[in-house]
Amino acid sequence: MFREENAKKGVTFPKGFKAAGVKAGIKKSGNLDLAVIYTEKEAAVAGTFTQNQVAAAPVYVSKEVVAGGKAHAITANAGCANACTGEQGMKDARETAAVTAEALGCDASEVLVASTGVIGVTLPMDKMKAGIKAAVASLSETGSVDAGNAIITTDTYSKACATEVEIGGKPVRFGAIAKGSGMIQPNMATMLCFITTDANIDQKLMQSALSEIVEVTFNMISIDGDMSTNDMVVVMANGEAGNAKITEKNADYEKFYATLKDICTGMAQHIASDGEGATKFLTINVSGAKSFADAKQVAMSVAKSPLVKTAFFGEDPNWGRVICAVGYAGVPMVPEKTVVKFGGIPVYANGVGANADEAAIRSVMEQHDIVIDVELGLGSESATVWSCDFSYEYVKINGEYHT
Amino acid sequence: MFREENAKKGVTFPKGFKAAGVKAGIKKSGNLDLAVIYTEKEAAVAGTFTQNQVAAAPVYVSKEVVAGGKAHAITANAGCANACTGEQGMKDARETAAVTAEALGCDASEVLVASTGVIGVTLPMDKMKAGIKAAVASLSETGSVDAGNAIITTDTYSKACATEVEIGGKPVRFGAIAKGSGMIQPNMATMLCFITTDANIDQKLMQSALSEIVEVTFNMISIDGDMSTNDMVVVMANGEAGNAKITEKNADYEKFYATLKDICTGMAQHIASDGEGATKFLTINVSGAKSFADAKQVAMSVAKSPLVKTAFFGEDPNWGRVICAVGYAGVPMVPEKTVVKFGGIPVYANGVGANADEAAIRSVMEQHDIVIDVELGLGSESATVWSCDFSYEYVKINGEYHT
Repeated sequence: MFREENAKKGVTFPKGFKAAGVKAGIKKSGNLDLAVIYTEKEAAVAGTFTQNQVAAAPVYVSKEVVAGGKAHAITANAGCANACTGEQGMKDARETAAVTAEALGCDASEVLVASTGVIGVTLPMDKMKAGIKAAVASLSETGSVDAGNAIITTDTYSKACATEVEIGGKPVRFGAIAKGSGMIQPNMATMLCFITTDANIDQKLMQSALSEIVEVTFNMISIDGDMSTNDMVVVMANGEAGNAKITEKNADYEKFYATLKDICTGMAQHIASDGEGATKFLTINVSGAKSFADAKQVAMSVAKSPLVKTAFFGEDPNWGRVICAVGYAGVPMVPEKTVVKFGGIPVYANGVGANADEAAIRSVMEQHDIVIDVELGLGSESATVWSCDFSYEYVKINGEYHT
Repeated sequence: MFREENAKKGVTFPKGFKAAGVKAGIKKSGNLDLAVIYTEKEAAVAGTFTQNQVAAAPVYVSKEVVAGGKAHAITANAGCANACTGEQGMKDARETAAVTAEALGCDASEVLVASTGVIGVTLPMDKMKAGIKAAVASLSETGSVDAGNAIITTDTYSKACATEVEIGGKPVRFGAIAKGSGMIQPNMATMLCFITTDANIDQKLMQSALSEIVEVTFNMISIDGDMSTNDMVVVMANGEAGNAKITEKNADYEKFYATLKDICTGMAQHIASDGEGATKFLTINVSGAKSFADAKQVAMSVAKSPLVKTAFFGEDPNWGRVICAVGYAGVPMVPEKTVVKFGGIPVYANGVGANADEAAIRSVMEQHDIVIDVELGLGSESATVWSCDFSYEYVKINGEYHT
């Protein structure tokens, strides 16, 4: 459903949103590293945040904005996470919002802030302030690509999408930019996703939709099992589409919900697929479970197993490592009832290898996108987790990414 | 306490034990791959086994032997795990015990069997039978080195130790061989450890000692977070030392317990240190926890984080990744109360970096053995986990180890 021609428009596709990305000098590489997204018309805002107890300063500040329910802007930087920075970090995060608000002529309590990068280093505030002013000065309806590039770290590409749907007889637009790459795991990670929409919707209803959707999208990806201090997914809805305000769970809400879920699913898949050093995109479907929680736990156990991940990197159809990870997931299972499939081909059934056709399996393993099915045969619940393989490049990126 | 000169004697150091390792042709490399350990005098036997629900056939068979309480021999092979092999696998495991028993003139119900290697392939029984006969024919008091080499897979060296202690006025000897390397994580892994002793001790008391000790030794190591289908730790005590039988928790028991714990600690540390592709040996001490379980959970979270492991591989003093893993461990913690030290030097305290001396920290990171201390400041319980780093070599070993 994503219109490729609109993906570049990203967060500026919905009416009334502008964006910019500038080089503030925070990244050592000298690349784009500071983004501002702005809507002149006040937007309802919803957000979900990292559950890591060591949360970064911008997470605390942005949570306050979401609690207020209204926002005009997001200021995000890469190159410095502003995490484990104590009181100075909180002061800097608040100042980031204040400087942005002053440049835009709005209230600081309506400016979200986000950071990603090295932990334990304070923000270079002189560079931040100059960067914010430059970004605000260059805000435009074509600024989403630069904004997207300004928030990435070890991502190989900026994730973006844009889509339009009819709600209440009006065309309603959605757009998003996201970054992921390292530290991606359940309950989110250094995963930033900013979604804009010109839909007119009640803030509480939108928050409830986002919270539900994040559970089955962003919380279902795993790259390396680490959970970052800085994650956030934020939606701003400015109502510019002019649809009758969505205030209850009616047909309009269902359309809004389905579109937001599609966007979150797509962004989550892109993030998993572009995991640090990834050469494979793995979709792990666990079915026949007694509960969603059981199915998710089994799928995550497979997704997080370094032995499984390195086997897929080596294109080795090593189903033994998959069934092994199912066996230690901590969920009751019966080996003889369990079926494992790679690319739809059974590789394990009845407690033993399924003697799959070698050429067919080899062809599955050579693909970039591989589906692993695990059928537990114990119930009717299921879950899908998206992940990637483990490569030399992962070790290189993370062994050489210095503090 | 381990006497280096005796380590080579390993499982044959205690009186009455013989061992052998032969080339049965199971490993593709043509290296030693089948071991037999034997005591003519019947031994009391204790064991702990994998908790993976997909347990290999030899695990089921050996559990039955331990339930019987008595053993004469262990037959172990590398190159084939005999896991996920269904009824044929059970038949083969039983036949392995039967063929060994026949060659030794003992009962098959007193022969433990163990396997390690590829999952999903049945044992080549012709090679196994010939190998068992050859091994039994070459049993000797100098056979421990060959037996140790016959059970390793991707280990870079065979783990062995031997020690003597006075119990009840008699010299009592202990010896061990072990293999580890991949799939090492809590609750054991493709981790085989065979311990022999000529101590005279009640079987139930020995089982209770072993179960306790495994919790704080072998279950406290983590290499890649995977748990194998084939783990086992087995102790055989044949009573040849002639000490008064230990039947209660007296001073003799305490000595036996302390020695067994030292052996298990040493073997567990060796296995963690020789993790697949490891270049660093990491000791993670978590203190100030409300319970041992909390402390272990936090230590395991740090030990299992690929981002922490790759940082240590890169000799990067990236304490941010450590405190991040502490924050998502699932145990309540207070960032401002937590202290992290590398090699005894504080690197994180009061919620921020501790401005440690760069040269001093660099010198710590360059060592092979590195101690990470995490002080939670919330209670008085502690736990220690042993682990290793994540290197290119880990990916190479596991991406290229084909089924």
